[in-house]
Amino acid sequence: MAIITLLTDFGARDGFVGVLKGVILALNPHAQIVDLAHEISPGDIAAGAFVLAASYAYFPPETIHVVVIDPGVGTTRKPLCVRTKTQFFLAPDNGVLQWIYAANPDAVVVELTNAQYFLSPLSNTFHGRDIFAPVAAHLSLGTPQTGLGKPLLEFNRGVLPPLRQQKNMISGVIIYIDRFGNLISNIASQYLQPKNIEKLVLPRHTISRLSCSYQNVENGPMALIGSHGFLEIALNGKKANEVLEYGIGTEIDVCLKE
Amino acid sequence: MAIITLLTDFGARDGFVGVLKGVILALNPHAQIVDLAHEISPGDIAAGAFVLAASYAYFPPETIHVVVIDPGVGTTRKPLCVRTKTQFFLAPDNGVLQWIYAANPDAVVVELTNAQYFLSPLSNTFHGRDIFAPVAAHLSLGTPQTGLGKPLLEFNRGVLPPLRQQKNMISGVIIYIDRFGNLISNIASQYLQPKNIEKLVLPRHTISRLSCSYQNVENGPMALIGSHGFLEIALNGKKANEVLEYGIGTEIDVCLKE
Amino acid sequence: MAIITLLTDFGARDGFVGVLKGVILALNPHAQIVDLAHEISPGDIAAGAFVLAASYAYFPPETIHVVVIDPGVGTTRKPLCVRTKTQFFLAPDNGVLQWIYAANPDAVVVELTNAQYFLSPLSNTFHGRDIFAPVAAHLSLGTPQTGLGKPLLEFNRGVLPPLRQQKNMISGVIIYIDRFGNLISNIASQYLQPKNIEKLVLPRHTISRLSCSYQNVENGPMALIGSHGFLEIALNGKKANEVLEYGIGTEIDVCLKE
Repeated sequence: MAIITLLTDFGARDGFVGVLKGVILALNPHAQIVDLAHEISPGDIAAGAFVLAASYAYFPPETIHVVVIDPGVGTTRKPLCVRTKTQFFLAPDNGVLQWIYAANPDAVVVELTNAQYFLSPLSNTFHGRDIFAPVAAHLSLGTPQTGLGKPLLEFNRGVLPPLRQQKNMISGVIIYIDRFGNLISNIASQYLQPKNIEKLVLPRHTISRLSCSYQNVENGPMALIGSHGFLEIALNGKKANEVLEYGIGTEIDVCLKE
Repeated sequence: MAIITLLTDFGARDGFVGVLKGVILALNPHAQIVDLAHEISPGDIAAGAFVLAASYAYFPPETIHVVVIDPGVGTTRKPLCVRTKTQFFLAPDNGVLQWIYAANPDAVVVELTNAQYFLSPLSNTFHGRDIFAPVAAHLSLGTPQTGLGKPLLEFNRGVLPPLRQQKNMISGVIIYIDRFGNLISNIASQYLQPKNIEKLVLPRHTISRLSCSYQNVENGPMALIGSHGFLEIALNGKKANEVLEYGIGTEIDVCLKE
Repeated sequence: MAIITLLTDFGARDGFVGVLKGVILALNPHAQIVDLAHEISPGDIAAGAFVLAASYAYFPPETIHVVVIDPGVGTTRKPLCVRTKTQFFLAPDNGVLQWIYAANPDAVVVELTNAQYFLSPLSNTFHGRDIFAPVAAHLSLGTPQTGLGKPLLEFNRGVLPPLRQQKNMISGVIIYIDRFGNLISNIASQYLQPKNIEKLVLPRHTISRLSCSYQNVENGPMALIGSHGFLEIALNGKKANEVLEYGIGTEIDVCLKE
């Protein structure tokens, strides 16, 4: 049973997500459709990219991920089908797949040009419905990626947030803030041996060690390895982003012991 | 596999939608349940009606649409099962099906009176759970519409928003505002040949032509045919309803060339 | 077909719910996953407990309910599998199952200790993904409860909100406020024979009788038996919690006729 996930900035009030499902099920009644997330802020490509990066690997092989965060719909930006070793990604060529490309350098990218798999008439404002959803259904029914369009060698690989590794320091930035207000950085756990950490430095706070859980520190900011495998800054029972007044792009320096 | 869609104003915090699904699956474990939208503003019948109108045609024949925007639950308003040529609609008789009636003049309307298909005891405050969900399940299992109650000839057809066609002008109103702040009118694309448009006039703005995409105009309001097939007013990267301060009922005049 | 419901405070923007589904489907592609509710306020155990209590009985036997409102994730609080006569509940031992225990005194509680059913590596911050979701999948595939860990006799039964029954009075409190602003109490319908009610007394209002529907009273607060089977206070077309300024814990006295 083919799994098709949906990741959008469509919210839950306008019926856009329901329409995607209708289009898919009309073509493949046996598709198993899973909502990945739909409350991405309108047009927030970086947030959508991060949510996708944090989620896709938990789905089984052959899963088809449909990503519609698409402020440029109807312009010259291209619709894509990207194949990694195990999964498919359908998305506009706007950088929302940047983490997928980084983790899968051998990904094969095809521009969706074969209009026989699109809805007709094709709107200029809702390619989720008219291109991505029907193409996902056809993929799930066995249409090969090569049949969907033409191979693309030049595409938008996005710009990964800055991560600098020096002798005794790793410097990264806050790249995502979750619903709980946790500040998630781009410093991966592999760089962080708890016993080697001297201190973590934020613009207005210094943290001396890694915590194990969100309730590990009574007051003040704590640092821990979050579920995405990245260093994150949190507050016990409060929203760290609001109380600490840090946001996307805030710099974090991890100082290591000599 | 029968598809049952759910369209409600229940939101995602109280478990109401989950309960609808439990009731359906307890009766028909093989039903395929699809969320159409659940963040309709509480009691906003017009918004629910529009979302349904924009969505239902994308679902395959025999789909059962359950619409629970029902501020009059427990009063004398009747619960209905409406059959069009290809689909079913279960909803209260409060006008939420107005676009369905307009597009399907031969729709057959039945009042749900056969209590053997209801949950018992029947509450006065949650007919979604006690009437619409179990009836949807029974319909999906093959119970014919005629077995659900008695035919109804007088019912609430609703009042479609005003649309006037004059010699060189079409006048409509904003009928829906989506999550992105786009102002959607009731002027359908069939009335709008791009080359025949002289100008579009809003209370405080005049627009000279139709755009092709949401990024087609740098600044200021643009007009385009939206994905629903209606004229809509939008702003590039901003919420048109907030910036332009227009809302439901705002008049739009399309002046045509002689 | 095994039904697995998900009740969380994860919202719909971070992909956490999508990840739970990916983990489940990777283990059991045939699981039928149902969203119970995901917009519980972050860490609001009492609200999650009430939503679960109001929902679970509508699901068929053998349903597996996964409840992840888990502010203490990664601390010493234990992950549990609870079996009632007909259903399973997977949740942290933080009181979120209090209504389940009260309604099912013979529930069998097992601490999840058998790590072969967990994801590996096990994070300290997302046991929904690493423990509850994979255990739910294994349960749905036939793993017996006894294989998941060790029986637990001491666990957090929670504290049910106060309900006092005197000669001519029943006193309870507001325990939940739904999306529509209705104030739901812990006074069950079995205590309330409409003809025996003298009056209902709130801190700043007195109500003389029970209403039948939310539109039964033009102005001012009304009392009615809500869909959960509890006394609730509502306003016609308005949010009672905002207008009346009552909240969780507000006392209600029902005075009975002699």
